[in-house]
Amino acid sequence: MAIMKKIEYAEAPPAVRAVYDDIMTSRNTDYINNIWKVLANDPVSLKRNWEAMKEIMAPGALDKITKELIYLAVSMTNQCDYCINTHTAAARKAGMTDAMFNELVAVMGLANQGNKTVKALQVEVDERYLPNR
Amino acid sequence: MAIMKKIEYAEAPPAVRAVYDDIMTSRNTDYINNIWKVLANDPVSLKRNWEAMKEIMAPGALDKITKELIYLAVSMTNQCDYCINTHTAAARKAGMTDAMFNELVAVMGLANQGNKTVKALQVEVDERYLPNR
Amino acid sequence: MAIMKKIEYAEAPPAVRAVYDDIMTSRNTDYINNIWKVLANDPVSLKRNWEAMKEIMAPGALDKITKELIYLAVSMTNQCDYCINTHTAAARKAGMTDAMFNELVAVMGLANQGNKTVKALQVEVDERYLPNR
Amino acid sequence: MAIMKKIEYAEAPPAVRAVYDDIMTSRNTDYINNIWKVLANDPVSLKRNWEAMKEIMAPGALDKITKELIYLAVSMTNQCDYCINTHTAAARKAGMTDAMFNELVAVMGLANQGNKTVKALQVEVDERYLPNR
Amino acid sequence: MAIMKKIEYAEAPPAVRAVYDDIMTSRNTDYINNIWKVLANDPVSLKRNWEAMKEIMAPGALDKITKELIYLAVSMTNQCDYCINTHTAAARKAGMTDAMFNELVAVMGLANQGNKTVKALQVEVDERYLPNR
Amino acid sequence: MAIMKKIEYAEAPPAVRAVYDDIMTSRNTDYINNIWKVLANDPVSLKRNWEAMKEIMAPGALDKITKELIYLAVSMTNQCDYCINTHTAAARKAGMTDAMFNELVAVMGLANQGNKTVKALQVEVDERYLPNR
Repeated sequence: MAIMKKIEYAEAPPAVRAVYDDIMTSRNTDYINNIWKVLANDPVSLKRNWEAMKEIMAPGALDKITKELIYLAVSMTNQCDYCINTHTAAARKAGMTDAMFNELVAVMGLANQGNKTVKALQVEVDERYLPNR
Repeated sequence: MAIMKKIEYAEAPPAVRAVYDDIMTSRNTDYINNIWKVLANDPVSLKRNWEAMKEIMAPGALDKITKELIYLAVSMTNQCDYCINTHTAAARKAGMTDAMFNELVAVMGLANQGNKTVKALQVEVDERYLPNR
Repeated sequence: MAIMKKIEYAEAPPAVRAVYDDIMTSRNTDYINNIWKVLANDPVSLKRNWEAMKEIMAPGALDKITKELIYLAVSMTNQCDYCINTHTAAARKAGMTDAMFNELVAVMGLANQGNKTVKALQVEVDERYLPNR
Repeated sequence: MAIMKKIEYAEAPPAVRAVYDDIMTSRNTDYINNIWKVLANDPVSLKRNWEAMKEIMAPGALDKITKELIYLAVSMTNQCDYCINTHTAAARKAGMTDAMFNELVAVMGLANQGNKTVKALQVEVDERYLPNR
Repeated sequence: MAIMKKIEYAEAPPAVRAVYDDIMTSRNTDYINNIWKVLANDPVSLKRNWEAMKEIMAPGALDKITKELIYLAVSMTNQCDYCINTHTAAARKAGMTDAMFNELVAVMGLANQGNKTVKALQVEVDERYLPNR
Repeated sequence: MAIMKKIEYAEAPPAVRAVYDDIMTSRNTDYINNIWKVLANDPVSLKRNWEAMKEIMAPGALDKITKELIYLAVSMTNQCDYCINTHTAAARKAGMTDAMFNELVAVMGLANQGNKTVKALQVEVDERYLPNR
């Protein structure tokens, strides 16, 4: 159970309903995920979080599926069960196949191993890879 | 300075040279990154690390640039300076533009904020997103 | 279930009972949290952990509620379910309202996003913020 | 050196200047921190980040100094050098004394030790601390 | 429930059975842990993961139990429930007593507290401890 | 440079000198590491930290070198440069060879990769490894 109550649409104040409506329209669904219902205890925070997500996750220089794969890789690294499950669903909806998921897990695991190994050995950045601006 | 000495090609034993040769051939370069030179103190580990990276980072269900973006997002989340710098270079070589880099940073930051917020509120996974197998 | 057995007061050796007594007196309660009962398998560790917590969490230059908010923010960042739940209770007992909790979550999430973004971009510390001692 | 160029006011496009002006006005300073100059490579991201920070860090149910202490505790836990240095300066400006800083470090360290210990022992949340909503 | 299906021996393709056979022989058991059954959805990844574990965890300059203690300390730091439980079992099988487990938890907790404290204070490495190669 | 001043012996108050004396006697050296000199700004914290370290790192069910290897593996996982360098020195003093260091790095890297992979796949703990107490 979440620490704060889940606010259902029927009992939500207008500011919360406006966000819920935007979520349902943008995602073409009639379902509101638990995270939004819990965030709704603080309507200003709900709106800020939703608008940031809507803006950042929209296709741009990177397409929808690539953004979902990146979000998922970070969530796996941070070991967030909620995020892994919901964003695996989102990535699949955006086109992620089982083969892509398997490769994502492999790259994510390799990076975690590599990141720690480099630090363990205190390897300094090769001069050629240092930014020059 | 790294904790272990960097092994240069000229002084490397055959097992290390074989890996260096494969790196240079596979990547079409005559440069060996510092991480490999430090790992070369343990030739078995060098070979295992290189072969895992070569196998995992090869294009498959995910293409080269997507894999590099995922690796980079994990390295940013883990805050590995060496990995951020070298894999930014690798991602650019694979086609990452500045606009793509900026969006990657935004998605990565959003995921970190989201991962921790969900845990802070102890939100349970929506039944519909739980795996059923 | 914890990896080690929970040691109840009735079966506890004197060294453990002394700590339990001090916990109950200091906190004006007759309840011992699970973590202490598990730590009690190692009485020396139990005593060291309890005394450090008692000393560090006592009001000083920072008051009780501020210390609890800081402890909670770290626990959220580390994603420790046990600590989030028990220290949310402790913070509420020290005066944390729902509004304060919501703002804590927002600041904590922002910091996580900011910390990773700064590293992702490899931003160097502004000269004026470097310690000069 | 940062991965992206630092955009100075003189060369900044109007959208970036507007944010810089708001930062300088809000903070009553004529100095723009490096992080904003690097984020300015993506004006939309700059604006979103600044507005989130301005909104979240404003005094509310928690006062300015408490928010800065929380931000700092998270940055210490995440080991972000840039954030530790800049937010130590910000916290001092908001009234943090050396004694408060020392206690912050102690609480933060204790929480990190406690968070990992609880997980190591796989201690389950006491029934009385589980949220009931 | 895991995100990918668990592949049982009876339904496994030859490449997966070969790894399962090697696991059972090497460990002198007829039980395959869940992690391998889930990884088996990607037989190449299964084989790579198993062979890396077999090679790295074999006794060498460090004996079996020391390697298990190190693996466990990292898993506790990363807060991986699955790994903590399975590697506690593995460490016990390799000779870890309750007293050793308690000391492991204490050292691991101390290191986590120490790591973060050092960073919080931005302490620079003493010249004498800097690697000179 | 550290955020707080380094307190040298000559200028230290008696409470600090007492700890410095104990460090030098216990470690049979006349050198005080930077971390203690910075912690000395808060003599109570200095004493608590030193006594915890002295008690926890003393040989017991685990010998000195095993404790140092565990401390080092955690420091590598947490990516603390200061701790990696000073505890590599401490581990070497306690008998760690280059071969042991290389194996430590390999096990630590493997654990990091494994921890994240298990979480990514949301693998549940095998019933037989669940604690039954």
